[in-house]
Amino acid sequence: MTSSRFGRLAPGVRDMLPAEAHRLRNLKEAFCDLVTGWGYREVVTPSFEYIENLASEEIQEDKFFKFLDRQGHLMALRPDMTRPIARLVATRMKGIAPPLRLFYLANVFNYEQPQVGRQREFCQAGVELLGASSPEADAEVVALVTEYLRQSGLGDFQISIGHVGIFHGLVKQLGLPKEVAQELKDALGNKDFVKVEKFLASHAATPEEARRALDLIELRGGPAVLDKAAELAQEGPAADAVENLRQLYQGLTCYGLAGHITLDLGLLRGLDYYTGLVFEGYTVAMGFPICGGGRYNQLLAHFGYPMPATGFAVNLERVLVALERLQGPPAEPVTDVLVAWENGSMAQALQTAQALRKQGLKVATALFEYAPARARAEARSLGAGRVIYCFADGTSQELASTP
Amino acid sequence: MTSSRFGRLAPGVRDMLPAEAHRLRNLKEAFCDLVTGWGYREVVTPSFEYIENLASEEIQEDKFFKFLDRQGHLMALRPDMTRPIARLVATRMKGIAPPLRLFYLANVFNYEQPQVGRQREFCQAGVELLGASSPEADAEVVALVTEYLRQSGLGDFQISIGHVGIFHGLVKQLGLPKEVAQELKDALGNKDFVKVEKFLASHAATPEEARRALDLIELRGGPAVLDKAAELAQEGPAADAVENLRQLYQGLTCYGLAGHITLDLGLLRGLDYYTGLVFEGYTVAMGFPICGGGRYNQLLAHFGYPMPATGFAVNLERVLVALERLQGPPAEPVTDVLVAWENGSMAQALQTAQALRKQGLKVATALFEYAPARARAEARSLGAGRVIYCFADGTSQELASTP
Repeated sequence: MTSSRFGRLAPGVRDMLPAEAHRLRNLKEAFCDLVTGWGYREVVTPSFEYIENLASEEIQEDKFFKFLDRQGHLMALRPDMTRPIARLVATRMKGIAPPLRLFYLANVFNYEQPQVGRQREFCQAGVELLGASSPEADAEVVALVTEYLRQSGLGDFQISIGHVGIFHGLVKQLGLPKEVAQELKDALGNKDFVKVEKFLASHAATPEEARRALDLIELRGGPAVLDKAAELAQEGPAADAVENLRQLYQGLTCYGLAGHITLDLGLLRGLDYYTGLVFEGYTVAMGFPICGGGRYNQLLAHFGYPMPATGFAVNLERVLVALERLQGPPAEPVTDVLVAWENGSMAQALQTAQALRKQGLKVATALFEYAPARARAEARSLGAGRVIYCFADGTSQELASTP
Repeated sequence: MTSSRFGRLAPGVRDMLPAEAHRLRNLKEAFCDLVTGWGYREVVTPSFEYIENLASEEIQEDKFFKFLDRQGHLMALRPDMTRPIARLVATRMKGIAPPLRLFYLANVFNYEQPQVGRQREFCQAGVELLGASSPEADAEVVALVTEYLRQSGLGDFQISIGHVGIFHGLVKQLGLPKEVAQELKDALGNKDFVKVEKFLASHAATPEEARRALDLIELRGGPAVLDKAAELAQEGPAADAVENLRQLYQGLTCYGLAGHITLDLGLLRGLDYYTGLVFEGYTVAMGFPICGGGRYNQLLAHFGYPMPATGFAVNLERVLVALERLQGPPAEPVTDVLVAWENGSMAQALQTAQALRKQGLKVATALFEYAPARARAEARSLGAGRVIYCFADGTSQELASTP
């Protein structure tokens, strides 16, 4: 017990004291209320799985928390919920008529370099909409995450929307082998446009082709971007992507959400399973995206149950950090009333407390007999605005909380 | 990806489909509502910690999920929340005037032989009441867990109440060395009274002493048990324990809960940190205790902040199993309304849906344009009792859900 680690936490994980835990609880409850109102139903999966279920060729397994079970099988703490839910649907929910609207509130784990807003364990709130391939389905999940961020009090936030077809179109157009394409993917993923420009200059057939490609993936903004993109995109994946984004954008205007949306044709997300729409949400208060998602039409087939799907996840750790920066530290949860008693009237005090709780008040009761003066002091240290004192003669009295 | 483990879960962990996940969500929300009404405030700790924080000499570390971090330090998934909260309070909440009322809803992990109701990962709902040593504090946590089980719909359940002082009194009276005492502890822990009787016969000075000791630890029942125990208990820890239980029982009668309480002077719980009251809750629907707790006055000192404490944890996995046995499978969460649209009236349909959600209804919207007949079919497969169809001319109509 004399280890220097005794009493300390590992890097990248943290405790939450009551004020912050209360803010997180409110975020979770608001999420449940919102998504159940849109017809989503919760599912639960284990915190760890056989690594076969979580990993793929492309995925960065070095960011997993891995361990061996006692049979020597490699396990990992889940890095996200999309694969576990794909596995769950493919193995346990076959035969339920699509679309399936599922949601989760779950802790996920990543072995990342810790920073504020980049923890190794954090709570994700997300949905998966399975069995629907339409742009309207994508619009629904983008609208839902937008509504959630709006309700969470983030105020000034933007959802950046892109499509992996833009990237695939470039790869096809430039005839890039897989390893070379990975270079472009990494540069785009890091939003390193200097590198992207150099890459295009050296891989395009002509300077004109390089310029057009760069112009396409640098397009950011409102719906005018789509007209410009339609001119720049070649036939094939890129042109299909632009058309898909146009339909999605029409859907989002039906939701009245265009003000929160930025089209970003260079957007790529790190996860390998996206096949269409990709998006990320940003607030001025936080350098990392607070949410992300997209369409993944191949992942269910990987688990033997081919089905299109789309979804999002919100990183509630980052929402907490952003809210703290925007609104200041969370308020301490209050106790409304302290009920104290004189010897012999404990039962009466407990009944009084129960009656007040039925009115929706938060009520603490004294843990031993003490006098009215002490009751007032205890109430002050609890932050309780009211004190009710039950006397031995069966009467009770509300004391002024300040003496 | 051709491993036999692909698509499967590890032993002892499981998925929850929407109906069961919904029941669990309700159990969690009811717990939050109840305990916040009694003045408890939530805290959050990481799922894993350095093993130094979770283990002690006596604790069965072989039941931990252990792994090494990349610095070679031994970590474990938390087996319960009492130690993490003791660490949290001792390191982060010093200087806050006691009593502290804290609660948690957290997944915990045990490498146990899996059975129904004995999972390797499960959700615990619990409270810790710190900084109060009175029997009234113990009565509060027992009353709170009783109220929770009652509200959860378990109906016929009993809380068995004991005190570790009975055991310590016997050890002292019989002059048992530590290893020998462990034998008695194990026999009592397993409720193996044949073994206990043999043990006492061979370690007591006289047959009379053995008989009195056995009579004491076999006492179970209502308050009359305490009078009998007072006769049988020797001066010292056992007599103090009986007096402590008498005061606790008086407190519980003030809560009006005596009907759910069984005194059980042979009760011992497996965890090494209990110093006074111990208790467990049982229902006829489940062979394992569904909750447990007790007083632990030394654990905070272990983390450098001496403070008495008492608390309980409810195993929500077992409550789910018990509810399924008592009430049958959980109901599927419903969608109330499907709103569908004719081409051109998607925006109107979305507004209609939002208006219905504001009334508290669960509303799904169509994910592409389809005709009224299909809308009725989709609503049936969703289980939605109502269908509203928005026509291109701006009118809308509630369709009969059965054609």
